[in-house]
Amino acid sequence: MDNFTFYSPTYFVFGKEEENQAGKLVRRFGGSKVLIHYGGGSVVRSGLLDRVRKSLEEAGIASVELGGVRPNPRSGLVYQGIELCRKEKVDFVLAVGGGSVIDSAKAIAAGTIYEGDFWDFYMGKTIEKALPIGTILTIAAAGSEGSGDSVITNENGMFKRGATGEGIRPSFSILNPQLTTTLPPFQTACGITDIMAHLMERYLTNTKDVVTTDRMIEGLMLAMIEEGPKAIKDPLDYEARANIMWAGMMAHNNSCGVGRSQDWNSHDIEHELSALYDCAHGAGLAVTFPAYLGYVYRHDTDRIAQLAVRVWGCKDDPKNREKVALEGIEKLRAFSRSIGMPVTLGELGGREEDIPKLAHTCCYGDGRDGFMHGFAKLSEEDVANIYRRML
Amino acid sequence: MDNFTFYSPTYFVFGKEEENQAGKLVRRFGGSKVLIHYGGGSVVRSGLLDRVRKSLEEAGIASVELGGVRPNPRSGLVYQGIELCRKEKVDFVLAVGGGSVIDSAKAIAAGTIYEGDFWDFYMGKTIEKALPIGTILTIAAAGSEGSGDSVITNENGMFKRGATGEGIRPSFSILNPQLTTTLPPFQTACGITDIMAHLMERYLTNTKDVVTTDRMIEGLMLAMIEEGPKAIKDPLDYEARANIMWAGMMAHNNSCGVGRSQDWNSHDIEHELSALYDCAHGAGLAVTFPAYLGYVYRHDTDRIAQLAVRVWGCKDDPKNREKVALEGIEKLRAFSRSIGMPVTLGELGGREEDIPKLAHTCCYGDGRDGFMHGFAKLSEEDVANIYRRML
Repeated sequence: MDNFTFYSPTYFVFGKEEENQAGKLVRRFGGSKVLIHYGGGSVVRSGLLDRVRKSLEEAGIASVELGGVRPNPRSGLVYQGIELCRKEKVDFVLAVGGGSVIDSAKAIAAGTIYEGDFWDFYMGKTIEKALPIGTILTIAAAGSEGSGDSVITNENGMFKRGATGEGIRPSFSILNPQLTTTLPPFQTACGITDIMAHLMERYLTNTKDVVTTDRMIEGLMLAMIEEGPKAIKDPLDYEARANIMWAGMMAHNNSCGVGRSQDWNSHDIEHELSALYDCAHGAGLAVTFPAYLGYVYRHDTDRIAQLAVRVWGCKDDPKNREKVALEGIEKLRAFSRSIGMPVTLGELGGREEDIPKLAHTCCYGDGRDGFMHGFAKLSEEDVANIYRRML
Repeated sequence: MDNFTFYSPTYFVFGKEEENQAGKLVRRFGGSKVLIHYGGGSVVRSGLLDRVRKSLEEAGIASVELGGVRPNPRSGLVYQGIELCRKEKVDFVLAVGGGSVIDSAKAIAAGTIYEGDFWDFYMGKTIEKALPIGTILTIAAAGSEGSGDSVITNENGMFKRGATGEGIRPSFSILNPQLTTTLPPFQTACGITDIMAHLMERYLTNTKDVVTTDRMIEGLMLAMIEEGPKAIKDPLDYEARANIMWAGMMAHNNSCGVGRSQDWNSHDIEHELSALYDCAHGAGLAVTFPAYLGYVYRHDTDRIAQLAVRVWGCKDDPKNREKVALEGIEKLRAFSRSIGMPVTLGELGGREEDIPKLAHTCCYGDGRDGFMHGFAKLSEEDVANIYRRML
């Protein structure tokens, strides 16, 4: 196991109606004037935004608002948010929404107190400081409510990049599973896929002897396989929603990813898809992951076979681990289909003729060195082959 | 799932030689004059204490020292520590040792800034505030390095009680698995048993639909069953020690225990054993758990059978879950034996004639209402029967 540090100081408040604690929590974590950042209609229509406003008012917290965050959140709105926060002397950013809203809020919180262009952070500069951030989560998926990560799409070229740093770990996150029961099955399935992808990115490691985190990842994946279909079948199933919501946080706060190399090639391969086709991130991952695993499994056949046996219930065959690994990948693909996810590029609106461009951006975008580094090292040709497996 | 809050703000620094960060970390978390609190000879003999002193000196941190913490740490030393901290104007408590040292340090940190008797906290008062605490862990077992809990034995009557509160969660914890490689097999096995007990106390729940945390607990138990025997066989196995150390923290920081009722009857039943016979807590738990489960499993046979199937590898038999549950309990007992743990009261130095007294203290000590409340409600007679199953 590699040396590591782990720090997850977010205060989680989980359960029914807990969004009514928002005002009290903003005050506890030092806020007096808040930017309420959100997406679009559903937060307004459901009455959630009104409840949040009321909670802040009752706690004597002033606020300004900025809506309009889209899936695959854009840099343009981040610049608007930064300007607004500076002008209004906002000292706390409250995200009300899913991962896109939270990621956009993190970018605003970091950018507001940074002298340079906030995009520097998305080009590799670590985020040490930001305005304190609170979240009220409405979609179980990205894990951004408990992570020090944010992903933004730069409108100047439509490329998606991630930033990271302790400065953008939320001070508090309110997780009320009730807020996710209005989510349609497709978005629910996207969330489930994203959570499972966060677990698999950590599972695909080159570090030996990481039994404890392996077992945690496997456990969380088994929980998703059991609870995910329940939430698809009955969107109002509170218990399934609750299990998925806690798993979503645990999958990405990194307690199951410490001390081991992680992959993240699949996320980067997918980011090009959602940047170019504006497809849902989860849908892109559902297409990417089986294609990717089918191409790279030989890098560590035993590990992929282990996942197949322990998580997908395949029968082990020590004499033919390749067969076991491939069976597991097929079960992953079948699971995605069973919850209504796409599994081909065409279903995302993608086209074969875009593949060279997609592969090139993956390997050379933003001054990269021509390779993807992760579980396995991939050349531009490898990446193009992976995209071709999505056809 | 029940509503809950989860807050684990400890900064974990994990890996080889990380104890050399102690001075820097004390400074980061606001300390300028430290009480170094420790147990006995091994910390001195191994040179660890010297390395810690050096690290503090290099960071310009003043210090005073108080050694002598024993397993099942005593109230007497806590009073001494509080007096010393007040006299020397200490502003940070650094525990160098295992769970007993950390628990004693937590009591001192809370008591130093409390006007009343620190024992109030161990009689049920929540610990809201304490001096900041750092830990350098030398035994993977109690999970106290990442918890808001502390257990102290009151010398006035020799009873053991727990206190809890966010105020005593460590600011930082240094986990270097190398420091645990000098631990003899017996103490290593006690630690493994304690970690598994912390997981089982959470597994024994009356809350329905807690699939995510169930699966996390099962995963951590599987990791202990795989890695525990390796560390017993080869105490120098760094990777096994590292896996056990992270599992020990995860087992008790409560991320796998949220939103569900927990048991803790076994811990209370064991506390009377270690208070009366001064046996190792882990050894007491190895004797207690199979006896306890063998008495209460009918309260939820399916759950105990599920544990047997998923963790102990028993074959499920939906028509005879009782048989499955009992097989699992027998495998737990066999595992304890295989790592050198006792499984009978006699091996702890216990005597049949003490049982009425043990059961009475469990049920009536400290103004309790005559019953143990947890997974199942137990009368004094029930508890006596459980102790008798240890014969």
